[in-house]
Amino acid sequence: MEEKTEGAVVIEGRAAPGPFVFVCEHAVNAFPARWGALGLDAATRESHAAWDPGALGLARALAARLQSPLVRATHSRLIYDLNRPPHSKGAMPARSEIYEIPGNRAVTPEERLARTEALYIPFHAELRALLAQKLARGERPLLVTVHSFTPVWHGQPRAVECGIIHDADPSLAEAVLAEACGQTGLDSRLNEPYSAADEVTHTLALQATPLGLKNVMLELRNDLIADAPAQEAMADRLSAVLRAAASALAQRGEVT
Amino acid sequence: MEEKTEGAVVIEGRAAPGPFVFVCEHAVNAFPARWGALGLDAATRESHAAWDPGALGLARALAARLQSPLVRATHSRLIYDLNRPPHSKGAMPARSEIYEIPGNRAVTPEERLARTEALYIPFHAELRALLAQKLARGERPLLVTVHSFTPVWHGQPRAVECGIIHDADPSLAEAVLAEACGQTGLDSRLNEPYSAADEVTHTLALQATPLGLKNVMLELRNDLIADAPAQEAMADRLSAVLRAAASALAQRGEVT
Repeated sequence: MEEKTEGAVVIEGRAAPGPFVFVCEHAVNAFPARWGALGLDAATRESHAAWDPGALGLARALAARLQSPLVRATHSRLIYDLNRPPHSKGAMPARSEIYEIPGNRAVTPEERLARTEALYIPFHAELRALLAQKLARGERPLLVTVHSFTPVWHGQPRAVECGIIHDADPSLAEAVLAEACGQTGLDSRLNEPYSAADEVTHTLALQATPLGLKNVMLELRNDLIADAPAQEAMADRLSAVLRAAASALAQRGEVT
Repeated sequence: MEEKTEGAVVIEGRAAPGPFVFVCEHAVNAFPARWGALGLDAATRESHAAWDPGALGLARALAARLQSPLVRATHSRLIYDLNRPPHSKGAMPARSEIYEIPGNRAVTPEERLARTEALYIPFHAELRALLAQKLARGERPLLVTVHSFTPVWHGQPRAVECGIIHDADPSLAEAVLAEACGQTGLDSRLNEPYSAADEVTHTLALQATPLGLKNVMLELRNDLIADAPAQEAMADRLSAVLRAAASALAQRGEVT
């Protein structure tokens, strides 16, 4: 089920027949030898600055339950944050929350180009190809990006548990929010703890909006998906939410 | 200066230093052996249904004057119209104006997928890569798609000579319109003879809008660019228009 492409992206379950395409841009905290550890100590490489802890396990469990493909990153977002365009400072941040990133303090134009060519371009090309193939087959996939956020941010605890974020078209996000509030006990909120204004909808804007595909970004507080049992339990809840949200859109004629 | 990629796209002047990226999706009326002639007679293969006559010559002459790259198609738009997404009927139209397209009457899902994989996916991947590389280098390219339209449509003559069409961000189109009206004697109009509502801004929406790049689609009446001298003369006028429009945006701080 696993297929590697040029090292920048793995598509798991490429031929899975379900209606969703899951994306996990911050899946892992890997620092391949080509890029090195960016001067980070082990604690920072383990922290939420380097990846979205728990997001990959949740995304895989959702993809399995909904029989849909998962497109995921293979390297830390501190090397290249695939949810940011190449001109964004956030693509290779010099600082992330309370963490300094020495290897990103003075990224040369050559280095920025090399990371863009090695990571951003192939990742988004593979995702685009998968979506275009589905469109050519008459499918209208629903794009769901899966993220996690830290429970404490700059020293402040966060109450929100499940953030549901949209790009230009809010319809799937609103349907997911309605189901999440109705079906789960989660503190679920629209466009929290981040929103499109924070640049976090780049993948949605690049991959779904121009093709008219329904889309949503899920942000789970990472203490709720800290290990495999918690990820499986959360996927039980959220897969039912996503299935019901897709049905609601279909009943309104908004997806086929 | 010419480089071929998988047969679906040619990038001319890839390293040219100018601020524009020109795109010509309907550059040629070639029917490569793999796809055949779609049952069309020679007259239809020469007609505007199969390509945008004069657009490639104009686009090349503009790219040369503005020292900018040109990304162009290598096959007739009747095989795959690169300015349409894979689920659009217009990507492989069964009819175009007064012309029936026998080879597109009953495109199977396998054939639709094959054309999408061979033509749409690599064309847009190469264009995306070129733009992403420029962004990584700190450039903010202006995307200009170059088209032509027939002077007589369903028997009706068209008065408009230069159509200037925009996607979500009208700023470059409006600047081009102001310069075209001021500098040239051309009958220049915004969002004529087509507009985004006719699906003609797919390339702009896919490639420029998500990256915040200024963009415009130029539609020239093809009797005005019928041969090389006419194309060169038109490029003299329109290159000055584009240069002035870019300067106007830069003066307003809208491009860097």
